[in-house]
Amino acid sequence: MTFAATILTLYPDMFPGPLGHSLAGRALAEDRWSCEAVNIRDFATDKHRTVDDTPAGGGAGMVLRADVVARAFDGVADHRPAIALTPRGRPLTQERVRELAAGSGVVLLCGRFEGFDERLFEARAIEQVSIGDYILSGGEMGALVLLDACVRLLPGVMGAASSGDDESFETGLLEYPHYTRPVDWEGRTIPEVLRSGDHARIAAWRKQQAGIDTRLRRPDLWERHEGARVQPPSGARRRLKDE
Amino acid sequence: MTFAATILTLYPDMFPGPLGHSLAGRALAEDRWSCEAVNIRDFATDKHRTVDDTPAGGGAGMVLRADVVARAFDGVADHRPAIALTPRGRPLTQERVRELAAGSGVVLLCGRFEGFDERLFEARAIEQVSIGDYILSGGEMGALVLLDACVRLLPGVMGAASSGDDESFETGLLEYPHYTRPVDWEGRTIPEVLRSGDHARIAAWRKQQAGIDTRLRRPDLWERHEGARVQPPSGARRRLKDE
Repeated sequence: MTFAATILTLYPDMFPGPLGHSLAGRALAEDRWSCEAVNIRDFATDKHRTVDDTPAGGGAGMVLRADVVARAFDGVADHRPAIALTPRGRPLTQERVRELAAGSGVVLLCGRFEGFDERLFEARAIEQVSIGDYILSGGEMGALVLLDACVRLLPGVMGAASSGDDESFETGLLEYPHYTRPVDWEGRTIPEVLRSGDHARIAAWRKQQAGIDTRLRRPDLWERHEGARVQPPSGARRRLKDE
Repeated sequence: MTFAATILTLYPDMFPGPLGHSLAGRALAEDRWSCEAVNIRDFATDKHRTVDDTPAGGGAGMVLRADVVARAFDGVADHRPAIALTPRGRPLTQERVRELAAGSGVVLLCGRFEGFDERLFEARAIEQVSIGDYILSGGEMGALVLLDACVRLLPGVMGAASSGDDESFETGLLEYPHYTRPVDWEGRTIPEVLRSGDHARIAAWRKQQAGIDTRLRRPDLWERHEGARVQPPSGARRRLKDE
């Protein structure tokens, strides 16, 4: 089954863009996914093809009209989840990416200017998602990010070489640090344990490093991870406390 | 002054990509910023142009070699901040975007496969940044996102029409919901207060809505916002508790 992505945007030429290269580009050429960009402006009804208007109540910028966007949306909406990319949305997570990648595709709505007329979300089943706590010039970058995250998980895309099970967020922690040849670089050597061939020691070291890096860089993830542990903490937590 | 972006990547053709359109594309054409993509592979020294090798200690995937990436980096590094896009990094924030946009540019390093050899970060001043808690096929999408966020803040890019001061994250809260014409759409009307012309009431309503949406959708932001308040809570917090 092909994962079908439909993107509602004012800039259809941005797609597939970077998704036409590398892993996602190869998968697109192999029909593992499809990418259809629909121009919201085609659903305007006046001769100026107007899609936006000034905010009710005043303020800077322009707001995307509910009627125009809904017309564009109704033309493509089906059983696929519909997601609007907006900083007002809930944060995108790897868990949600996995759910989406396991489905038949997505309909993505890309905001511009000050965003969508809020009534769109009252009248249609459209989830609001944010890719991070920063402001972009539009939802298009968010759509590209969401699709890239989904496409790499589709069957046959990554190949057996990288299952992704160890990666950051899949375990609730950041991934451990990586090293490769040369063994000695600018006087810095690969940690001895990784050259020991002792798989149990290597696994324990990686788990410890993942914990240390998560605690230092992402105290929010660390707290959630520790809070989710049903078992009482064993050596790992004591070791961190004793440092 | 032109904001100068240099991107180290294995996929230089991905740039400027979507940043060649719309707001960022116009700014690029007007020389408000520059975009130089450098192929890391050009700094490999063997005849196969190898940039990666298997992970020390075993495991799936490939790791970018510290020596090759450092050679590429040393050729472009200067006074600009250097940032590697990686899920192991600290989360990108609007505050950091503002700092970067106020500077002379950035050097961005895009990882692929399992990421960079960790010694790169011990030996060079390179910040590790993540755009969100999900896994992408490489750092290129992160670089596009970071640049889009920076470019829109450069002088003359957004214009006076949208200062961005009210937007999500700039106030520590999500932005309030927007409405525009038509006043009546599918039986749903624009909230009366926004049509009242009473600027004080409109401002109060928007502040309240921003608080409600933030509390519901982003309890993490809400807690941080409330924790940062020096003044004891007044009507706003009582109102939310009483709901």
